[in-house]
Amino acid sequence: MIERLRPFVPVLDWGRSYTRAALSNDLIAALIVTIMLIPQSLAYALLAGLPPEAGIYASIVPIVLYAIFGTSRSLAVGPVAVVSLMTAATIGQIAEQGTAGYAVAALTLAFLSGGFLLLMGILRLGFLANFLSHPVIAGFITASGILIATSQLKHILGVSAHGHTLPEMLGSLLSHLPELNIITLTLGILATGFLFWVRKSLKPFLRGLGTPPVLADFLTKAGPVAAVIATTVAVWSMDLTGQGVKIVGAVPQSLPPLTLPSFSVDLFRALVVPAILISIIGFVESVSVAQTLAAKKRQRIDPDQELIGLGAANLGAAFTGGYPVTGGFARSVVNFDAGAETPAAGAFTAVGLAIAAVALTPLVYYLPKATLAATIIVAVLSLVDLSILKKTWDYSRADFTAVAVTILLTLGLGIEAGVASGVVISVLLHLYKTSRPHVAEVGLVPGTQHFRNVLRHDVETNPAVVTLRVDESLYFVNARFLEDMVQQRVTEGCTLRHVILLFSAVNEVDFSALESLEAINRRLTDMGVGLHLSEVKGPVMDRLNRTDFPKKLNGQVFLSQYGAWTELTAHC
Amino acid sequence: MIERLRPFVPVLDWGRSYTRAALSNDLIAALIVTIMLIPQSLAYALLAGLPPEAGIYASIVPIVLYAIFGTSRSLAVGPVAVVSLMTAATIGQIAEQGTAGYAVAALTLAFLSGGFLLLMGILRLGFLANFLSHPVIAGFITASGILIATSQLKHILGVSAHGHTLPEMLGSLLSHLPELNIITLTLGILATGFLFWVRKSLKPFLRGLGTPPVLADFLTKAGPVAAVIATTVAVWSMDLTGQGVKIVGAVPQSLPPLTLPSFSVDLFRALVVPAILISIIGFVESVSVAQTLAAKKRQRIDPDQELIGLGAANLGAAFTGGYPVTGGFARSVVNFDAGAETPAAGAFTAVGLAIAAVALTPLVYYLPKATLAATIIVAVLSLVDLSILKKTWDYSRADFTAVAVTILLTLGLGIEAGVASGVVISVLLHLYKTSRPHVAEVGLVPGTQHFRNVLRHDVETNPAVVTLRVDESLYFVNARFLEDMVQQRVTEGCTLRHVILLFSAVNEVDFSALESLEAINRRLTDMGVGLHLSEVKGPVMDRLNRTDFPKKLNGQVFLSQYGAWTELTAHC
Repeated sequence: MIERLRPFVPVLDWGRSYTRAALSNDLIAALIVTIMLIPQSLAYALLAGLPPEAGIYASIVPIVLYAIFGTSRSLAVGPVAVVSLMTAATIGQIAEQGTAGYAVAALTLAFLSGGFLLLMGILRLGFLANFLSHPVIAGFITASGILIATSQLKHILGVSAHGHTLPEMLGSLLSHLPELNIITLTLGILATGFLFWVRKSLKPFLRGLGTPPVLADFLTKAGPVAAVIATTVAVWSMDLTGQGVKIVGAVPQSLPPLTLPSFSVDLFRALVVPAILISIIGFVESVSVAQTLAAKKRQRIDPDQELIGLGAANLGAAFTGGYPVTGGFARSVVNFDAGAETPAAGAFTAVGLAIAAVALTPLVYYLPKATLAATIIVAVLSLVDLSILKKTWDYSRADFTAVAVTILLTLGLGIEAGVASGVVISVLLHLYKTSRPHVAEVGLVPGTQHFRNVLRHDVETNPAVVTLRVDESLYFVNARFLEDMVQQRVTEGCTLRHVILLFSAVNEVDFSALESLEAINRRLTDMGVGLHLSEVKGPVMDRLNRTDFPKKLNGQVFLSQYGAWTELTAHC
Repeated sequence: MIERLRPFVPVLDWGRSYTRAALSNDLIAALIVTIMLIPQSLAYALLAGLPPEAGIYASIVPIVLYAIFGTSRSLAVGPVAVVSLMTAATIGQIAEQGTAGYAVAALTLAFLSGGFLLLMGILRLGFLANFLSHPVIAGFITASGILIATSQLKHILGVSAHGHTLPEMLGSLLSHLPELNIITLTLGILATGFLFWVRKSLKPFLRGLGTPPVLADFLTKAGPVAAVIATTVAVWSMDLTGQGVKIVGAVPQSLPPLTLPSFSVDLFRALVVPAILISIIGFVESVSVAQTLAAKKRQRIDPDQELIGLGAANLGAAFTGGYPVTGGFARSVVNFDAGAETPAAGAFTAVGLAIAAVALTPLVYYLPKATLAATIIVAVLSLVDLSILKKTWDYSRADFTAVAVTILLTLGLGIEAGVASGVVISVLLHLYKTSRPHVAEVGLVPGTQHFRNVLRHDVETNPAVVTLRVDESLYFVNARFLEDMVQQRVTEGCTLRHVILLFSAVNEVDFSALESLEAINRRLTDMGVGLHLSEVKGPVMDRLNRTDFPKKLNGQVFLSQYGAWTELTAHC
């Protein structure tokens, strides 16, 4: 029984060979991650428009379920910035923040998202994530970072503002600027400045003082906790709430509660498209992180099993007071750097967070929201990397267009429109590129059996035998182009007796292209010109052999271009 | 001035060299086409839900405008079955048939469609038509033929029925069956049977009687006119209208009137998407026909100029009481077979139809609608060709899926959903196929410099040097696949020292794939394995040279695979 489950439950695999050394490494990693996660979880819940405890709850059961079903040994699952913002954008249109309806909608979103991921995993559709190209993902992450940081400015300024796009947010901030709270702003700027300093300069500074590297590392990661403690104490001791500083307030002291998502059909209908988008974004982010980390240790990630692991994590979140979760970049890297060896590190982190949920929550009563906003801003601004624009511009205009459109639309229309249009643009650009394939006329490189472009290399040619190398698979988008191309070349030379189509770069001939080849063959036959194919790949030839095209072909199919050339030029 | 216009107004080209022989051929073709078009135009107007004269008006001015701006010498432009049905489906949701609003909406649809085609032509977007694959078009035409024939059954049965999908139509017909009119049914069956017989057996029959071929041909084409005359006389002489036989009724005796489309924003908004779909379908049908006919005479069609010609024709229809038009298959083939040499044949046809519109319209008062329905049924059933299912099934499952989905969705959800999903399915299947590319390990064919798949051919290999031939362009959809693929192959053999990626079939390396190549290079470097590329095409190498990848590459880029092989195996 257990043997049959093994492929679907990776824990059965690594759990058997769990050693004491691995246990001790996992425990240390869990301690570090727990300390980092407490402020981050509170902050992301704030970003999602949920009560702070939702962020902690969303980190406990999901992390355990992922440890059981996921394949990455370093991935840390929980609330992440982008998904939190998408959650807020989605639910903000359905319910008012702070109401019970809002929280239930968040659970339902996690439920739908989990169900969708699980379904994709069972159907083994993990490859679909590849449809998001690297440049689109990079552009999307950068634009999201800008959006998220902007969304947090209101907490730093101490004003109320809203909006889901950059123009909306900036407009709303400007119009609320008169409500500016100076004390909140001071706290916010100090916290942000401190956190930036910790991230950038604390480690070299401590090393300069002679601190051992491990301790320096630990202290750097505890930076946000220090900011939390310092600002909480400041608010409490100086009674700054009376001055209008907004605080986290009462957080229930409890383990994750058992909750139920709503099963209302209307709510499902309203949430299903956002749930799919959130799932896809979350999955892509998670798999990218997991693959990056796995590559460093020569481990492998199974994208389909990842879908199952993340699906289970989201279902867990739906039933324990959380909201949509995924594998986060920052927390996973910290987990990896801290030496986590197995998913058990995640389970220990969950235990740490459960203790925090029960014991530490009263301590964050006076924690100012500005500090949490500072935590988010510092975290997401490290994701902003506009150099992708320059890199893709240098490399290819098509990739640049995809990035630029994704960034502009994400900022201008919001996160969902941005990523959807990024995918569509990438696919359209690819189709456009393949619709007008490069076709090179080739000749023999003297002294070899190798054929190259006549325009780029000094090669032997023969006016009676033309070889066209088609640099693209032939399918419906470009089938007609080839017809025109051959037609044009053939009408140019009147001494022409043979056309060889060099198929070394043709990886597919679909039914539309087969019809085009038949048309070309008919026309050349009418003109008394021979049509030959050379270097047709096995899979392509197999398929052509199922039709009567090889019989209709007025010339031959040659194994090698050199063979074709020597035989056909021998008579000319 | 005229010289500058020439590329955009093909008439300036062929008009100069117009000969008397061409004139006489064009006149004969025009006479034959006119006789065929009179009943057909009335019938398609009926199909579109418009008064019969709209069909004739839509054939006059558009045909002349196409003659001026189009590039095909044989294409006959006017109402066609599929576009007529799409018009009915679109406008039926906006206005009641028979109202003035309905007719104005049809003009507006033609106006928007003409504007869209013209815009596409000016932007030179004719290549977009290639996104409809041959199998999708074939499936769509077949399903449309079935839908159209079914939609005409109500006229044959003499009942009222409605619906835009096959289940709706059949359900509606069944529920109205009690209203069956026996006399209408008798007329309808006789007309349909006669027309099928004419189409299939009249010509051999006449030839058997010793009729000269030209006359036999002419009589066959006049078959529908004979059916029209016979049934009209029958209804008139026996006063069958009193028995409930529905007739065409009064048709105004007039040249095409000057009409104006509506410029209401609401109407534009409601019609713009259908107008785009109608334009695309019409354009694809028209270009397919034009290309087929042009190929027979070694002429060329310019798709971008075709857009301009069809755009002008539709604008003409919008201002002269017509509705959306395009190049029709049946009428164009007849025109071609009848010997039309230039677009002037179309202009003469227009004159013939104008005479008919003024002089002959009173004669069709008693023409039963059942006869027109029979004309349509016989015409469209010749478009139904289910053999495409078998052909694509034998050739490739992907093409088959595209056809089958297109047919089922067109029948089940209607024409617009059918064709839209056909396009989407084709694109997705293509992306899916390229997402898991064929990668072959190749070896040297003994005695040559040619490399083939080790699994298919008896070739020389070397355990220290592995050559992988990547049979697909590398782009975001499959970038990660290559990483996994190389990783897997490399971990298999421990004596491995060099990996050569044979790039003869790689036509593009996009930014995502470049990042994957960099990742592969890093990993192989870590493992002490050399990474080499061979036979990289010019355009691909140009692009790689703009990055620092060639410098980072731990091995070399070889011009030929044979060169790579000899150099790398020399040391092993």
